Amino acid sequence: MTIQAITFDAYGTLFDVYSISELSEKIFPGSGASLAEMWRDKQIEYTHLRSMCSMYKPFWEITQDALIFSCRRLGLRLDLAGQNALMGQYARLHAFPENLSVLQQLRARGLKLAILSNGNLQMLQSAVDASLMQGVFHHLLSVDVVKKFKTSPEAYQLGPDVFGMPAKNILFVSSNCWDACCATWFGYTTFWVNRTAAPLEELGVAPHGEGRTLADVIAFVEKLNPA
Amino acid sequence: MTIQAITFDAYGTLFDVYSISELSEKIFPGSGASLAEMWRDKQIEYTHLRSMCSMYKPFWEITQDALIFSCRRLGLRLDLAGQNALMGQYARLHAFPENLSVLQQLRARGLKLAILSNGNLQMLQSAVDASLMQGVFHHLLSVDVVKKFKTSPEAYQLGPDVFGMPAKNILFVSSNCWDACCATWFGYTTFWVNRTAAPLEELGVAPHGEGRTLADVIAFVEKLNPA
Repeated sequence: MTIQAITFDAYGTLFDVYSISELSEKIFPGSGASLAEMWRDKQIEYTHLRSMCSMYKPFWEITQDALIFSCRRLGLRLDLAGQNALMGQYARLHAFPENLSVLQQLRARGLKLAILSNGNLQMLQSAVDASLMQGVFHHLLSVDVVKKFKTSPEAYQLGPDVFGMPAKNILFVSSNCWDACCATWFGYTTFWVNRTAAPLEELGVAPHGEGRTLADVIAFVEKLNPA
Repeated sequence: MTIQAITFDAYGTLFDVYSISELSEKIFPGSGASLAEMWRDKQIEYTHLRSMCSMYKPFWEITQDALIFSCRRLGLRLDLAGQNALMGQYARLHAFPENLSVLQQLRARGLKLAILSNGNLQMLQSAVDASLMQGVFHHLLSVDVVKKFKTSPEAYQLGPDVFGMPAKNILFVSSNCWDACCATWFGYTTFWVNRTAAPLEELGVAPHGEGRTLADVIAFVEKLNPA
């Protein structure tokens, strides 16, 4: 079997972060979309800067830093109640509707499943619980143990290490094109869940497979692992 | 003397990139500002991803990749003429009006001056020529020799290496807050030319000095190096 295990990115891939925009809009009418977008971009930027500078701190704290900066940048007055509500939303994300059934079908095919995320373990466990996916994953892998965020090789190495197999035998699934591309560079077999029909990043590399929802992963695995 | 040398970031700090927005707007009326902003963000993001993944390629090429992606993302039809015009603008940037006089005053105080930039040497030389700053800098330092972009330590190390002194005796000047902050982590004495009155990045670190134009660097140096 070519593919023996699958690692999934968490935010945006398994867990729907749309409710964060909704809540942003409720708290800051007219600015919800800009805030959610800047918050996400800044969150990822801070993971890059801290990885490159070896100044790691947990994703939960970085997420909060990014929220505080984005509100200041947009001139939005963030009080503690708003901050707690928005941060708390990260612990209450719902899974995309197709997820549970897709994950169960993949497990039934004998595949080992893991989450490989920038999120610290507490965040991941909380999101897994809130989305009723307890018992679905064999491993929850957080970059917290290596203190480097994606797309650092130390972060991607967690998959091969936990499964004890080369990256090419592990399917890496992400809705973030940059994540799927950089995982391809690392050596994974990769699948991009392109939920928003975004263009491919101009990085000179492409994920091995692409689809619109998590359900498309099944056909891709079947193609690679013919019965 | 505390400060014996100064390294300057190039784009936005010495060279005014505003003309790029202007030209973008001329080529894509109504979308110039969004394109210029996304182009810049994507350019920096690609330097991060390629540094973390050890997939270096020169800044000129990354800049072009970021332009191509941004146009595709925004649904703008970029033909070769437009691409060449926009890329060519990078080689024809003007310096901010105060620069030449400020740099000459700093040189007259016996300080060694350098540019330390993500840009490859050809881009830097071209921008120095276009902005009539030939002979002003003792060194043009490009990350191209270490194949890691800022904010990697290998990139920041170019300053101490070329000047043969500890980073704390070198003033690192940038208009990008993230650059000034990460250079502070690295060990430089730092100054943020906050041209747009932006809020401080939420990274738990701050540049040692802040001003609105390059001219404010002089007073800061005088404070650190009293006569």
